[in-house]
Amino acid sequence: MLGGKGASLAEMTRAGLPVPPGFVITTRACHAFREHGGALLPDMVDEIAQEIRKLERVTGKGFGAADNPLLVSVRSGAPISMPGMMDTVLNLGLNDSTVVGLAKKTANARFAYDSYRRFIQMFGDVVLGIPHYKFEQILTDVKQQENVAVDQHLTEDALQRIVASYLDLVEQETERPFPQDPIEQLHHAIGAVFGSWDNPRAVVYRQIHNIPDTLGTAVNVQSMVFGNMGEDSGTGVAFTRNPSTGERGVFGEYLTNAQGEDVVAGIRTPKPIAEMARDLPEIYEQFLGVCRQLEEHYRDVQDIEFTVEQGTLYMLQTRSAKRTAQAAVKIAVDLVNEGLITRETALLRVDPDQLVQLLHPAIDERAATTTLATGLPASPGAAWGRVVFDADDAAQWVKNGEQVLLVRTETTPEDIHGIQAAAGILTSRGGMTSHAAVVARGMGKPCVCGCDALTIDPSNRACVIGHQVVKEGDIVSIDGATGRVFLGAVPVREPELSEEFKTLLQWADESRTLNVRANADNPEDASRARAFGAEGIGLCRTEHMFMSADRVPVVQSMILAGSTAEREQALERLLPMQQGDFYGILKAMDGLPVTIRLLDPPLHEFLPSLEELIARRATLLAYLDNPTASDSDADDARVQRLNAELAELAEVETLLAKVRALHELNPMLGHRGCRLGLTFPEIYEMQARAIFQATAQLLQEGLHPMPEVMIPLVGHVEELRRMRALVERVARQVATEQGIELHCPIGTMIEVPRAALTANEIATEAEFFSFGTNDLTQTTFGYSRDDAEGKFLQTYLHEKVLLENPFAVLDVDGVGALVAIAAEKGRHVRPNLKLGICGEHGGEKHSIAFCHDNQLNYVSCSPFRVPIARLAAAHAAIQQTRRESVSDEGAMARVVLSR
Amino acid sequence: MLGGKGASLAEMTRAGLPVPPGFVITTRACHAFREHGGALLPDMVDEIAQEIRKLERVTGKGFGAADNPLLVSVRSGAPISMPGMMDTVLNLGLNDSTVVGLAKKTANARFAYDSYRRFIQMFGDVVLGIPHYKFEQILTDVKQQENVAVDQHLTEDALQRIVASYLDLVEQETERPFPQDPIEQLHHAIGAVFGSWDNPRAVVYRQIHNIPDTLGTAVNVQSMVFGNMGEDSGTGVAFTRNPSTGERGVFGEYLTNAQGEDVVAGIRTPKPIAEMARDLPEIYEQFLGVCRQLEEHYRDVQDIEFTVEQGTLYMLQTRSAKRTAQAAVKIAVDLVNEGLITRETALLRVDPDQLVQLLHPAIDERAATTTLATGLPASPGAAWGRVVFDADDAAQWVKNGEQVLLVRTETTPEDIHGIQAAAGILTSRGGMTSHAAVVARGMGKPCVCGCDALTIDPSNRACVIGHQVVKEGDIVSIDGATGRVFLGAVPVREPELSEEFKTLLQWADESRTLNVRANADNPEDASRARAFGAEGIGLCRTEHMFMSADRVPVVQSMILAGSTAEREQALERLLPMQQGDFYGILKAMDGLPVTIRLLDPPLHEFLPSLEELIARRATLLAYLDNPTASDSDADDARVQRLNAELAELAEVETLLAKVRALHELNPMLGHRGCRLGLTFPEIYEMQARAIFQATAQLLQEGLHPMPEVMIPLVGHVEELRRMRALVERVARQVATEQGIELHCPIGTMIEVPRAALTANEIATEAEFFSFGTNDLTQTTFGYSRDDAEGKFLQTYLHEKVLLENPFAVLDVDGVGALVAIAAEKGRHVRPNLKLGICGEHGGEKHSIAFCHDNQLNYVSCSPFRVPIARLAAAHAAIQQTRRESVSDEGAMARVVLSR
Repeated sequence: MLGGKGASLAEMTRAGLPVPPGFVITTRACHAFREHGGALLPDMVDEIAQEIRKLERVTGKGFGAADNPLLVSVRSGAPISMPGMMDTVLNLGLNDSTVVGLAKKTANARFAYDSYRRFIQMFGDVVLGIPHYKFEQILTDVKQQENVAVDQHLTEDALQRIVASYLDLVEQETERPFPQDPIEQLHHAIGAVFGSWDNPRAVVYRQIHNIPDTLGTAVNVQSMVFGNMGEDSGTGVAFTRNPSTGERGVFGEYLTNAQGEDVVAGIRTPKPIAEMARDLPEIYEQFLGVCRQLEEHYRDVQDIEFTVEQGTLYMLQTRSAKRTAQAAVKIAVDLVNEGLITRETALLRVDPDQLVQLLHPAIDERAATTTLATGLPASPGAAWGRVVFDADDAAQWVKNGEQVLLVRTETTPEDIHGIQAAAGILTSRGGMTSHAAVVARGMGKPCVCGCDALTIDPSNRACVIGHQVVKEGDIVSIDGATGRVFLGAVPVREPELSEEFKTLLQWADESRTLNVRANADNPEDASRARAFGAEGIGLCRTEHMFMSADRVPVVQSMILAGSTAEREQALERLLPMQQGDFYGILKAMDGLPVTIRLLDPPLHEFLPSLEELIARRATLLAYLDNPTASDSDADDARVQRLNAELAELAEVETLLAKVRALHELNPMLGHRGCRLGLTFPEIYEMQARAIFQATAQLLQEGLHPMPEVMIPLVGHVEELRRMRALVERVARQVATEQGIELHCPIGTMIEVPRAALTANEIATEAEFFSFGTNDLTQTTFGYSRDDAEGKFLQTYLHEKVLLENPFAVLDVDGVGALVAIAAEKGRHVRPNLKLGICGEHGGEKHSIAFCHDNQLNYVSCSPFRVPIARLAAAHAAIQQTRRESVSDEGAMARVVLSR
Repeated sequence: MLGGKGASLAEMTRAGLPVPPGFVITTRACHAFREHGGALLPDMVDEIAQEIRKLERVTGKGFGAADNPLLVSVRSGAPISMPGMMDTVLNLGLNDSTVVGLAKKTANARFAYDSYRRFIQMFGDVVLGIPHYKFEQILTDVKQQENVAVDQHLTEDALQRIVASYLDLVEQETERPFPQDPIEQLHHAIGAVFGSWDNPRAVVYRQIHNIPDTLGTAVNVQSMVFGNMGEDSGTGVAFTRNPSTGERGVFGEYLTNAQGEDVVAGIRTPKPIAEMARDLPEIYEQFLGVCRQLEEHYRDVQDIEFTVEQGTLYMLQTRSAKRTAQAAVKIAVDLVNEGLITRETALLRVDPDQLVQLLHPAIDERAATTTLATGLPASPGAAWGRVVFDADDAAQWVKNGEQVLLVRTETTPEDIHGIQAAAGILTSRGGMTSHAAVVARGMGKPCVCGCDALTIDPSNRACVIGHQVVKEGDIVSIDGATGRVFLGAVPVREPELSEEFKTLLQWADESRTLNVRANADNPEDASRARAFGAEGIGLCRTEHMFMSADRVPVVQSMILAGSTAEREQALERLLPMQQGDFYGILKAMDGLPVTIRLLDPPLHEFLPSLEELIARRATLLAYLDNPTASDSDADDARVQRLNAELAELAEVETLLAKVRALHELNPMLGHRGCRLGLTFPEIYEMQARAIFQATAQLLQEGLHPMPEVMIPLVGHVEELRRMRALVERVARQVATEQGIELHCPIGTMIEVPRAALTANEIATEAEFFSFGTNDLTQTTFGYSRDDAEGKFLQTYLHEKVLLENPFAVLDVDGVGALVAIAAEKGRHVRPNLKLGICGEHGGEKHSIAFCHDNQLNYVSCSPFRVPIARLAAAHAAIQQTRRESVSDEGAMARVVLSR
């Protein structure tokens, strides 16, 4: 009811802090005002009069009293902060006679008339609706006449003339003289502030931030204090601790003999707050005490505005300070150590999303940089490198010792080796969940996607970024946290994980019940994840293992095999490679579970694209159609060329036929996942054998490998039943061959709605479910992620058809409903069924809270997001406990406020 | 427990019909036999001995008695018929002495020895496991010695020699003489029949037909009767009514002085049963009486086997007769009129699927035909036409008065005008739900899809079907009910709907509670549907209306428009065309609801394909790269050609850019449905305006149009809220402009899982839900229909991973669960919410039963399936009533038997 500003002023007053006296008109009055067509009710008029009389008593000043005038500020104050959106009137109470009194009392006529002129201008603009520029015109004219450049140099005389012109302007525009009665001024100002709740920019702001229109604003009427009443006056802004580093000690700036506007105008350079100790030593001591008191009262770092009026300190505002991630972590831990807050509160004080800043290298903002363009901040971190336009080149250049940035229109699975080699990725197309973005995030590699201002000209090995031509080999930097692209090598700060960071995450581990695993496909990522605190691998994809340059030909020969025997030959060559992959990962995660997903993508992803082949075929046909190419060719050469083209055509035709046979209109819903395993069981057999042989090897070395085999894309229990039988058969074979015992849980991904809806059947064959919420979101919404983001989803988000991108934040109502159904049905038939989530949502805080609330066992996310997930899981657990410990609605509301 | 055959024999006996005496060993004995390792228990041996003694008393014959031997048959009889899968032994009881008694008693030594030799052979094969061919070898040898061609011509002497050789063979193979003790013979035979339950072909049969292995078989031991004991004997097979036409009167064949084998062997031609009236007048009268009695007892037409032994009639078997659709309808109606069954039973007697035969033209099977190949029976009906390979050609040829068959690899929406023009469609690729199949079924046009044996050679305007080269213009016929393809014009029978058919459907209408609507996109289909009894249009697609040759250019200019204004111009040209479409359909369905779905497919479906453009571009580039094409070209011509190619290249590049921009990796999950409406509201505005202007026009003509507007592919209530607002705004505009009142329900398709899961929200904005179960199946399973059928789904069905194609039969566990959730949640917030289904499942009987059980309001199917749906809806209602009127489990079982 008091709004944010009013509540904090009231609270400070109650705490005995020096606050300029005043009163708050509640949001309830705002409702009444709006309901009565924008008029103050008689009751309100009476109450305002009473409050003004009280104020006169407290301050010893008189509202409209020429000798000792009471001046007030009239400010908005909504329950949810809407900075700068609504109106304010300062210096209210000035008129032709009180201005003289003010001049006398302050012995500063220049200040008095400047205040009056500002008041008239503000009142004229906010209350009377006179265009701002008309006042500015008068001001500019007088400044020209006086030949001064800035307002501060205007003389008292000039200011008086301006006041006179302003009063004329008001009378001219409103056909009435400027109101001289302070009470009339006040009524108008209060009405205008109430009215500003409905001004267009406030309405739009509320729409954007989902603030209900029905809240309304309070109005704060507060006696004015002035920091410009001599050298014993001043004004300043301070934080009770450093908001950038979190270090203890008051941090801020102040100016003597100045008002807040002077600081903003930037005419005088403010001094560090520590210098107040010299300028106003007593006040400084009092101020430090107030800061301590505020921190103890609010149990958090405060952001404070204050004014000193002729040796008296006044607190104008206090609020919780915004802070960097580094500061947030340090302050939270310090406040616990100081006994001000509990560990749980400390955990809740740090937004998991903020941690991203601490985990990746960042652009050193102090270094001068040229921003060429801005794309989507697809994967955080900063990097520079020599520009290359091709994955093979990227790999080659890196082998030659160069650091490269891979620049592509978009990436495909065939570019994996290039992405792996590059220091960062920049693409012109694709959204936050495009291939490049997903893969880069998985690898913790900086990536900027969908950079519209980038055009690649592959034939000239060059591109244009913004207006800059960039050639292959030129150095460019990207900042994946903001999406910025820079020319040249921008200095980068490496992340340092502080002791406080580690402490906070330890506390998080004590609070959370949800396990945190990582998605990793190779030993390096697995080790990194483990270092970040991962308690296992929740998703080890096996397709990336097929993508390295030396394997693609073998994989292709497997796909192009004319018979099962031929295919098995190719698979036999892949077996030792896969076994090596699994050996490495299981070793890196020794003693922790590793969920390995058998091959998932459609086979055509490993072959050249249909488009490429069609174009090549047409080109060859056109040449062959018209072979008398160049008259100067010798006959022999012509024949040779013809033969070569004919041979290539035959090859292209063969490949095209196979690619066409495998081509799918909707590969997302096509021949992939366990559908591959059921039609080509020999592929899954090879993979299962590789897993178990690697396990046997490690067991024989005395280690404790814990593989779990995951069958992808199951929609019907029969699919899982058969694939499970296949995997178990191979396990038995390997166990017999190696003379060991093998225990390996087998489970499935839940990534199509049917799997969730029939979870009671599927759970009979599964020891675990891993919710693949990326695909589950695609099928539940009927959105192709590859297409939606570039096409309609941006429109949907921009026009608020959807409030969140469901690929970023788990859709609780739809996808979440399926997760809940599957959890409930699955556990009904198998109470110890292990449940996890391994989509991108596994590293997103709202989604993690959902997983906690639905009693999943773990979330799995990219290695770099493991600390974020640990903290988010702690948040979810603490919030649940708090929800459960309160039962009435009022208590619920308190919890919401404390978040 | 008695098995099918045993039960019917017992029932006939109880009804006082002349049945050769015998006894049944129950399936319970079979269980005991199998559990005890394939041995008869002592109890069983005792009981068998008792029953044989009873049989001896009843027949007055002795088991093993040389003077008057009792012979028995030993047959299997499973609870669910498995014809020919298990073993039988006839003439058991014959041995070296009883064969002499039989010869004496029948005065037919040839017959006696032939019976003995058959018995030894059958027993040797079935019981002793001696390879069949060894007996055949002996038989063949003797026939050669005797110089006779067929068994029937062997003399008594020759048969005696065969018997001797057979007995030697048995002793040689089993190292024991052939068992002479009838009781020993009987025990072995019973054991063999029990054992045959587990023979491989029976096991496979049960797997295929989902018959539980645990059922077991009964064994029927019955005294033998012989139809070959002279001219007062005979054997025959008869139906109590004509199974082909349903006409009253006994229908069948018989032979005097013959056994059943003789009829099967085909040596003698059987006589029509009516001739029995002359040959055996008394028996014939008795037989007609028995037929009447059987029909009255079973209240259905019977398929009867009988034998006359020396003037005594014996009934060997009776069962409900299989019948054609035509007969089924007539018989059902006649039996009601005769007071034998109720209307409800009559309805249940006709399988809705059978009606398909009656609704479409059919190949006249009597006409000699050459089958070239067989594909999938994609859309029933028969047609012939001149082969064309292109939709434009099809349209052109038909304009010129030809009847054509459109032959394509597969069809796309661009071929619609060709499909419309053609008499039938034949494709080499695509399954039962490919584009061609779906469109053809919708139009009731014969179609054969996925004909592997068809290869098209477009450059030579020819194709190969099987081994036959077929050129453009050659005549080919197809039978869409069986998938056969014929050379030449095969005569076709037009369907005739009998009076009984109409009566039966009237009764169906009285029984059913589910409404039946049709899917139709044009006035002709709508009228046809109405004639078939449709009570409205459940799905009027608007995209086909955009496909006609004269509209495609306008639609393309709408899509390629550079600005909203340009797009609106194109839409303005489309408006009167659309208005005409809706006028026609609403008029055809005057007084009945028509649910019109706004534009659904992605816009790129209306543009040339990406592949085509890529190939064309590559070709042009290759030519331009090498422009010195032909040395003989005059310079002017060369320049002209160059310029033309450059101009085309520019055009192709522009189009390619747009097609690429609209290209989607997974169009099924892409920018379509209401996603189009939200991004290009002007398209939906035009369509809404066309609907309401057509409605206004009809209202002004005094008719009663009942449009309902359906917003496709809604997944979130906000999508529907905005589209609803748009449609309502246009409705108000048109109402004002035309000075009329407009009431138009607005609803949505439920075709993505999220819509079903959040139906409580969506129902707040929807007056009706129409379940688009085609797309809902795609998203629930994660199957792309276009890809799945050609790729893994065939494997899935073949290997029984799935038992039914979910695109044909609604998947109750998954998709059905979503329908049930949506129905429940939707009706919870809006009790009068209208629910229907408009996928292909709307015409499938199991799916219709599901819709009835879940209290949907209507199903909507293709016009030709409307009668089928009416009958299936009646079935569902009757079955539900019957289920509800019985409550204990036993009663449930009775209902299952009566289906």
